[in-house]
Amino acid sequence: MNAEEIFRNIKRKKSFLCVGLDTDYKKIPKMLLDTEYPVFEFNKQIIDATQKYAVAYKPNLAFYEILGAAGYMSLEMTVNYLREHYPDLYIIADAKRGDIGNTSQMYAHAFFKTLDFDAITLSPYMGKDSISPFLEFDGKWVILLALTSNEGSKDFQQLHLGEKTQLFEEVIRTSSKWGDVNNMMYVVGATKADSLKKIRKMIPEHFLLVPGVGSQGGSLKEVAEYGMNDRCGLLVNASRSIIYADVTNKFEEAAAQEASRLQAQMEEILSSRLLI
Amino acid sequence: MNAEEIFRNIKRKKSFLCVGLDTDYKKIPKMLLDTEYPVFEFNKQIIDATQKYAVAYKPNLAFYEILGAAGYMSLEMTVNYLREHYPDLYIIADAKRGDIGNTSQMYAHAFFKTLDFDAITLSPYMGKDSISPFLEFDGKWVILLALTSNEGSKDFQQLHLGEKTQLFEEVIRTSSKWGDVNNMMYVVGATKADSLKKIRKMIPEHFLLVPGVGSQGGSLKEVAEYGMNDRCGLLVNASRSIIYADVTNKFEEAAAQEASRLQAQMEEILSSRLLI
Repeated sequence: MNAEEIFRNIKRKKSFLCVGLDTDYKKIPKMLLDTEYPVFEFNKQIIDATQKYAVAYKPNLAFYEILGAAGYMSLEMTVNYLREHYPDLYIIADAKRGDIGNTSQMYAHAFFKTLDFDAITLSPYMGKDSISPFLEFDGKWVILLALTSNEGSKDFQQLHLGEKTQLFEEVIRTSSKWGDVNNMMYVVGATKADSLKKIRKMIPEHFLLVPGVGSQGGSLKEVAEYGMNDRCGLLVNASRSIIYADVTNKFEEAAAQEASRLQAQMEEILSSRLLI
Repeated sequence: MNAEEIFRNIKRKKSFLCVGLDTDYKKIPKMLLDTEYPVFEFNKQIIDATQKYAVAYKPNLAFYEILGAAGYMSLEMTVNYLREHYPDLYIIADAKRGDIGNTSQMYAHAFFKTLDFDAITLSPYMGKDSISPFLEFDGKWVILLALTSNEGSKDFQQLHLGEKTQLFEEVIRTSSKWGDVNNMMYVVGATKADSLKKIRKMIPEHFLLVPGVGSQGGSLKEVAEYGMNDRCGLLVNASRSIIYADVTNKFEEAAAQEASRLQAQMEEILSSRLLI
């Protein structure tokens, strides 16, 4: 999938919503616990209920690794289910990996071949040779951490290098030369709407993956105001606010309702920007 | 395990060798490919052959993830085998994770409870709240990336913050307050022996995990000269040079020979420092 195809899906669905599959087995409705792969069963129903309103899904690897081999099976089944039933959806492995060259090649193979993800989130700390191996797969994407929404983003990401530049800006400036707008995106937390402006100046064309709307308190309007470009340029992620909207046996209705509410807001924004 | 216990094992074995289990299924001797879990079978034989000479083992997660659920099974069996047969060995998950708080809690559980690792390597980019959840497990360790041995370490780790400080130094200075010498180590590449001196000044007491001796060209003598402290303070990792010393059916003899060669060098160094 390239950037133009992502934008085409955004226009068709009138949505730039990414649903985060941070599926905590402790929060799964009890009636699903008797199935062989409850995490997959939950994901499947969430996907069926929300896919009308979303353009992307993002399983968070930690929530699968905690279950060992069974978790891995649920992850694999989730990716395969998405591919088979909704081939237009963009599937992101929220894995935040990053290692030296030959190990990165292994990770790239693990996420792009063993599993058929479209994209993977990576940490920039180890530099170019930890990222490049992922950029060698046609149609696959690196989504690099730039400025995250958590408190700890102050510790290093926001450090100043000289008077004007902060580390996250240098990460964007340097790394944007490693790939292009069709194989690299950046993670920018929604709680940092003011920084989005700066980032948009540096990389006007790139897509940004924005977590932190909803549970973490970011505002969709602000994100759109400062982060949107003429191909939308945004994937906004919501996880807990959708998938745990209700934890009874009506969980999928509640998830659909919350996804639909966000989609309606997104449609209004896309429309006011004359993008649809 | 605390720092004193690690040092006790180092003295007993006259070695500070960590064997990296970067087990590439494509390089496993053919005769093992008929077994159900060839990666585990290979690891088991490598461990049995080299454990006399080593104090730690470090499976590299990428090499297991590439095999999907079967890879996960091999990883789990490897950790369990080490625990059961050689309970004194220190087991490191080379995973280089790092995510926001609630996700980090999941990863910590995945590596310290679902699997029984002693330690995990983490990337510092997301700051304190991405690391702290791992420090809440008694006797478990965070091994934080500081200065890695790859070319890409220049891209960000070595950037200057003001005139004197480089990013990796700030990472060490800030993060060393999050834990203590009994639950935090740092990764410092062996190809950066000159920087080891600086780092030892900043954190005289911490253990350092040093990859890059052997295949990547670092010198054991230099590492010891600049990095050793009065409790040794070093775990030096070798992966490919040991586990692929020979790829025929004599692979475990060759691995033992290479591990023994490194152990002998280490014994000489420990002895000359009057640590044994």
